[in-house]
Amino acid sequence: MARKIPTRIYLSEDEMPTSWYNLRADMKEKPDPILHPGTLKPVSLADMEPVFCTEPVKQELDETTRFIPIPEGIQDLYRAYRPSPLIRAYYLEKILGTPAEIYYKFEGTNTSGSHKLNSAAAQAFYAKEQGLTSLTTETGAGQWGTAMSMACAFYGLDLTVYMVKVSSEQKPYRKALIETYGAKLIPSPSNTTESGRKILEQDPNTGGSLGCAISEAVETAVKTDKCRYVLGSVLNYVLLHQTVIGLEAKAALDKYKIKPDIIIGCAGGGSNLGGLLAPFMGDKLRGKSNTRFIAVEPASCPSFTRGRYAYDFGDTAKTTPLIRMMTLGSGFVPSANHAGGLRYHGMNSVLSKLYKDGYVEARSEAQTDVFSAAVQFMKAEGILPAPESSHAIKAAIDEALECKKTGEKKVILFGLSGTGFFDMTAFMAYNNKTMNDHIPSDEELARGFATLPDIPQNK
Amino acid sequence: MARKIPTRIYLSEDEMPTSWYNLRADMKEKPDPILHPGTLKPVSLADMEPVFCTEPVKQELDETTRFIPIPEGIQDLYRAYRPSPLIRAYYLEKILGTPAEIYYKFEGTNTSGSHKLNSAAAQAFYAKEQGLTSLTTETGAGQWGTAMSMACAFYGLDLTVYMVKVSSEQKPYRKALIETYGAKLIPSPSNTTESGRKILEQDPNTGGSLGCAISEAVETAVKTDKCRYVLGSVLNYVLLHQTVIGLEAKAALDKYKIKPDIIIGCAGGGSNLGGLLAPFMGDKLRGKSNTRFIAVEPASCPSFTRGRYAYDFGDTAKTTPLIRMMTLGSGFVPSANHAGGLRYHGMNSVLSKLYKDGYVEARSEAQTDVFSAAVQFMKAEGILPAPESSHAIKAAIDEALECKKTGEKKVILFGLSGTGFFDMTAFMAYNNKTMNDHIPSDEELARGFATLPDIPQNK
Repeated sequence: MARKIPTRIYLSEDEMPTSWYNLRADMKEKPDPILHPGTLKPVSLADMEPVFCTEPVKQELDETTRFIPIPEGIQDLYRAYRPSPLIRAYYLEKILGTPAEIYYKFEGTNTSGSHKLNSAAAQAFYAKEQGLTSLTTETGAGQWGTAMSMACAFYGLDLTVYMVKVSSEQKPYRKALIETYGAKLIPSPSNTTESGRKILEQDPNTGGSLGCAISEAVETAVKTDKCRYVLGSVLNYVLLHQTVIGLEAKAALDKYKIKPDIIIGCAGGGSNLGGLLAPFMGDKLRGKSNTRFIAVEPASCPSFTRGRYAYDFGDTAKTTPLIRMMTLGSGFVPSANHAGGLRYHGMNSVLSKLYKDGYVEARSEAQTDVFSAAVQFMKAEGILPAPESSHAIKAAIDEALECKKTGEKKVILFGLSGTGFFDMTAFMAYNNKTMNDHIPSDEELARGFATLPDIPQNK
Repeated sequence: MARKIPTRIYLSEDEMPTSWYNLRADMKEKPDPILHPGTLKPVSLADMEPVFCTEPVKQELDETTRFIPIPEGIQDLYRAYRPSPLIRAYYLEKILGTPAEIYYKFEGTNTSGSHKLNSAAAQAFYAKEQGLTSLTTETGAGQWGTAMSMACAFYGLDLTVYMVKVSSEQKPYRKALIETYGAKLIPSPSNTTESGRKILEQDPNTGGSLGCAISEAVETAVKTDKCRYVLGSVLNYVLLHQTVIGLEAKAALDKYKIKPDIIIGCAGGGSNLGGLLAPFMGDKLRGKSNTRFIAVEPASCPSFTRGRYAYDFGDTAKTTPLIRMMTLGSGFVPSANHAGGLRYHGMNSVLSKLYKDGYVEARSEAQTDVFSAAVQFMKAEGILPAPESSHAIKAAIDEALECKKTGEKKVILFGLSGTGFFDMTAFMAYNNKTMNDHIPSDEELARGFATLPDIPQNK
């Protein structure tokens, strides 16, 4: 018997968004400008163009255009894997015995396994349009690298991926997938760059770091003709591309006149949560809704819940422009956590500002609790979630159980940003009860904060 | 700009099939009956009930009911991951420069990664309805074991999976996924059964075989209270459950008045191809269409193209009933091939009969050619295909290129039965050019045929 609200709501192709939504246009108080680390003045297009593709930088600096059209060439790749399903969690609701309605927007149906492809598609398209022939990037857990390798194969661009060496060794299948899509994968640090050679001289046996991989990717981009560097998180243009998630989710819910009371997403750099919540937050900022927004982060890397609102570098090597954001300090070293995509010291500046101004709540969760929720979810709903996405599952279950106590029929929407096909070692650790929860001490946090830049804006 | 025929055609929930289609009802000449290996008489419900669940056996023996209703409880699980998308391969068509229209039905969007869940759902449901509390099965490559673990988690049944030992060691992540869904996984041979202990005594270091794993699973099922054995391929009730693939595909094509000229599927035991082609073949058998049907098998295990039509055992241990089918002999040992799901000596009896009677064509392909087609496909369409499914891709590309030569605008439909997330070692071997193509010699085939049962029906 078909249900009134189907288990899976798909938009038709002609209902798919044709513009992204620039949330900043509806913020009365904008995020503070990105600063040049040398001059401490707001960065300009000219500052960023040598490293980044031009169109995304324009989007980064655009605070006023509410809707930015998605070029036909990007819509073309979106149609290869979108719309993603909006799923009513009937089975999870039943197991929880909750009166709440739970929905999730599932971004893991494409081969890259996550929402990352939404921005990879855009950045590769703009690079091609600009006449570039190659791109460089870094990847840690590997989802971004896979997404970029797919997008570059689609548009016909060469791609070099610097993958944190220890990750490339621990995840040989991720590496193989990226290479099968035709990208050149270099474990970092490598002897292909000056920054890599310098680090190898100091420590030939290092497993590498994301900061080091970024340095190598940027150096190669700058030194190569018709080449730029691309980044998959934190920046506002990435969040802009990810608004396709929220726009689709809202269009699907609108078809059934469903208004979410609570929207939940995991938060690492913030692009997944930011993309999901953007159009709903727009309504709230315009006084049209009272939706609650909850960011969920790992207790091992609590940039919202225990961080500071300060100007900070985006990378550990302290080479990027300065972004005012919720941060633990670029020198903060999060403990090993299986949600590699959430191990980032800072947070997107729009989300940071919204948190600071009280529009977004945040909570942190220990990873064993997160995996317990993940296993409950997968047995009910059948989908293997990514460890990152499982943070959102944990909070959604908690909110649904709260409704069970109070009897409230709230509507909960969460972002299931990806699948865990390449994270089975994490599930093995959970199954074998060898998973640890490390929660940083105040002293550990203090060491991170000590690495914040000592500039007038941070006084 | 949205296309006239969208890239992805989804049925709505109320357009999903509510009955399976029993192709045998429309066959004027039926497949020969399954025989009891002792009496050589057709098997009865009573013969099979001690091992298999009752309702599936009834379906196995039912040659006349055209449509068999899908119980609401099974439709409920189908709604958790179905309808699967029917995809127009616009990107592949463009790269090939073919006038052909290519469509594929993609069964890999669920976590088990393949079509196997369609029958796992049905078998677990019927087991629960029958009052059983546990099931046993075997798994080689692991897709069937994963599908059963998901279905048993959903309906609340205990499951023991005997996994071929060498597979469980080579695919620790598959093993972990099955265990995360709550199943008990035992590498086979094991000391939990008499048949396992016997084999271990003979060869303590054996890596196991599918035949041995089947023997262990059957033995445990028979010796355990309220327990039965389930099987994921070859049998006609499995093919029946898989017709949901073809019924959905046909409903989606009918919405746009598209009639396929050629339908292609990979063939191991035959349930994926049989499920896809069933309703289209029904039209052909009733004289309503002229569609061509092509089965694609690995050159290393050519049961259609080089096999014999004979009564044979379903397993290497020679314990099952006898099925008349295209077979290489149960003692045929296919060489290592990365498409584990196609390494089977025989073929479903309905498909075998249709092949014998000229309704189905078959071809075999070497695996390096198959992987070459797979990589071309994934760069164009973005989807990582399973090695098994890539056999269908190879034939679809060949047919599309043939259309390019002749200028014909044929409509090609193929089954993309699963994804390759757990097959990256195969892609690594392809990338590194260490993949071999072993094509069995006539002598090797003769050794297989020598193991066919020496019974009057085979004279």
